[in-house]
Parts: sequence; structure tokens; C-alpha cells
Amino acid sequence: MEDYALRKTLPLKLEVVLYALSDPVRLHIVHSLAKRGELACYAAVAGLDIAKSTQSHHYRILREAGIIAQRKEGVCFISTLRKADLDARFPGLLDAVLLNFQS
Amino acid sequence: MEDYALRKTLPLKLEVVLYALSDPVRLHIVHSLAKRGELACYAAVAGLDIAKSTQSHHYRILREAGIIAQRKEGVCFISTLRKADLDARFPGLLDAVLLNFQS
Repeated sequence: MEDYALRKTLPLKLEVVLYALSDPVRLHIVHSLAKRGELACYAAVAGLDIAKSTQSHHYRILREAGIIAQRKEGVCFISTLRKADLDARFPGLLDAVLLNFQS
Repeated sequence: MEDYALRKTLPLKLEVVLYALSDPVRLHIVHSLAKRGELACYAAVAGLDIAKSTQSHHYRILREAGIIAQRKEGVCFISTLRKADLDARFPGLLDAVLLNFQS
């Protein structure tokens, strides 16, 4: 099992987190992860008509901003929302974004 | 007096607001406006070493996202934060961002 939560020990930056959240697809992914816990592969965007390379790009932006963690299991990434880390660093921010997201 | 709050009647969009806030200079402007009320010209970035065209660019992004309103008085723009509109549309979001901004 390989750990892809590369930025786990790096400090979360407000402007980087806000940028990562400033896209409807990435908001959809974050909302799905908040609702359903960890999701395998690109399940969070399964209902959306998005090329695989674009899906991968969106997940990378979220991972590099520290919003999600990913680990590899077999041929798949398992993604989870780093809610506890985000809540500790930026109290109220993720909840405010999720509250206001219309999926 | 000319009103530059061009998007005043357009719906605020979450991803557009988050994008506009995803920059340290724009966060600084929003924080200054929240603290000091309306500010003339580019007073909010007076302490920062930023070219005038770049200042103008940042204000435009904020205005087009609906985060600030601007009106012209003489040779200057007067900028104000559209806090009431933002709070009504996205409850808790601006407060969470301001709370977590370290100027």
C-alpha cells in the first residue's frame, strides 16, 4: 500500500485550499467524499461526463492542496477527505463551503 | 457618480467567489475592507509593493465575482465589501474566510 498523501505534513495554505475548491467538479468531489466517506478510483465523478485525464487533474489539485488524501490499493486510488486536518487549521471553512454547495 | 457594481443583480456563484478569494493580495483587500469599511482608490493595498495594473486586476476579479462594489468619485474608485449580499447567499462563508486569514 503506497501513501499518496504527499502534503500531509506540509502546512495547509488558505489561498491554495480556496483555489482547489473554486471549481464545480472539485466541489462535487469534496461534497461526495464528505457525504459518503472514502471512495475508490474516480467514483465521486462517476455521474459526470469527464475525461479520465481531467478527473485525474482535479484529484491532483485537491490532493496537492491538502484537501484529500489518497492511497493506492491494487489498480485504484482510495480517496478520503482530510476533514479533521482542515477543520483544525481553518475552523468553519469546509463546513461553510459544503453548506453552500448545490450539487 | 458612476456605479461599477456591475454584477449586483447577477447571482453570486460559489466557485467564482472562492476563486476570487484564492489569492493573498485579494484576501488582503477583502480583509482590509471588512475591517475599515469603504476604502478609496487602492488604499487597501497601499502597504504592498504591487504595480498599479496588478492592483487594478485584483480589484476587477473581486468586483466581477460580486465580492466588492465600486463607485467612481472624482478620479478615484470607492470600494466596499458586499458583505450583506454574500452572507445572505453563502451563510458563514465570508466570516470563515476572514477568521482564517492571517494578514
